[in-house]
Amino acid sequence: MPKIVDHGRRRRELAEALWRVVARAGPSAVSIRTVATEAGWSAGALRHYFQTRDELLEFAIELTEERITRRVQERARVGGDEPVPERAAAFVEELLPLDERRRAEFRIWQAAGEDFRQAHDEGDRRRWATQRELYRSVALALYDDCSSDTARREQWVATWAEYLHVFCDGLATQLMFAPARMPPGEARDLLRRFLADVGRRAGAAAPER
Amino acid sequence: MPKIVDHGRRRRELAEALWRVVARAGPSAVSIRTVATEAGWSAGALRHYFQTRDELLEFAIELTEERITRRVQERARVGGDEPVPERAAAFVEELLPLDERRRAEFRIWQAAGEDFRQAHDEGDRRRWATQRELYRSVALALYDDCSSDTARREQWVATWAEYLHVFCDGLATQLMFAPARMPPGEARDLLRRFLADVGRRAGAAAPER
Repeated sequence: MPKIVDHGRRRRELAEALWRVVARAGPSAVSIRTVATEAGWSAGALRHYFQTRDELLEFAIELTEERITRRVQERARVGGDEPVPERAAAFVEELLPLDERRRAEFRIWQAAGEDFRQAHDEGDRRRWATQRELYRSVALALYDDCSSDTARREQWVATWAEYLHVFCDGLATQLMFAPARMPPGEARDLLRRFLADVGRRAGAAAPER
Repeated sequence: MPKIVDHGRRRRELAEALWRVVARAGPSAVSIRTVATEAGWSAGALRHYFQTRDELLEFAIELTEERITRRVQERARVGGDEPVPERAAAFVEELLPLDERRRAEFRIWQAAGEDFRQAHDEGDRRRWATQRELYRSVALALYDDCSSDTARREQWVATWAEYLHVFCDGLATQLMFAPARMPPGEARDLLRRFLADVGRRAGAAAPER
């Protein structure tokens, strides 16, 4: 009888080893060899799952995306009766490098450079669309003018989803690269003010009545 | 008679060699050795100016800042009679990685990691303040409500300078890391729309008359 291997479990083991390597030494330390050593596997055993460093990185990015999606979904399930900008901020914050876990996620995404992304364009496109969809939901929640028509609302939501996407990538960049200028507390505060201003803008965009 | 050395000129020579190394192989290739070779100097001669790779990087970042400042000042001198959001966009674009030259500048800034910035905190703080000042000027230009009082204008300008700073860092990040999703033409267009929306917001923020 062939030996039964739980491939899902082995991949998770690898994922955890990969994560420990990144947390300890940064994504530049990721290689078939370092991850195999960390997992207590041989390089050959690891190659059964991933042939190249690129495939390992692609796996790490997919894991990051899964983790973020799960956090956002959990947040949506919990609900809450906070004001809209506060709830919107809580969603967006799942994507921002506000603590060590999310900083590690950001570093992994960043480690996959331009060449890598061109080579994995399909995954890249899907991740971009997933993020844009989150920002669309947030913009929709912020649009509080029930009297306006659907076309007007759609246009507003599309525009501000795009702005929010850019704004949050900017906050993430400042959190990572200018931590002395933009500490987590200030980023949270700035995000809330921006979302509240966006919401007021939605009111200002209402048609003449 | 001692040999007369034009130190300013020699530093500029080094700067150009440094830039060629970055353009060809990225900032990770920057070292005393590679830059000396590129300049046709000995490592010892280069060490007369810079002791460590960190000092070379700090020099490269200062050069970047000088280049950007010069471009912004030239733009201010030329003036022009385009609409305000268009002029504001032209200023901001000097900071965005919209072409190879500005992508190289962005890469240099990025190569100087967290540890580096902590070690050079004074330069880091000064550069941040310089950028914020530019965004303040842009926000002030966008504020078109002459009827409002100074305190109100100041508050609005401070807020939107902060938002613009974050927004433009986000655009830069997407231009660098998601070039297939955010090509230069789209970034320019998005920036103009955002600036125009910010300007309209200035009108909406006007006090009751």
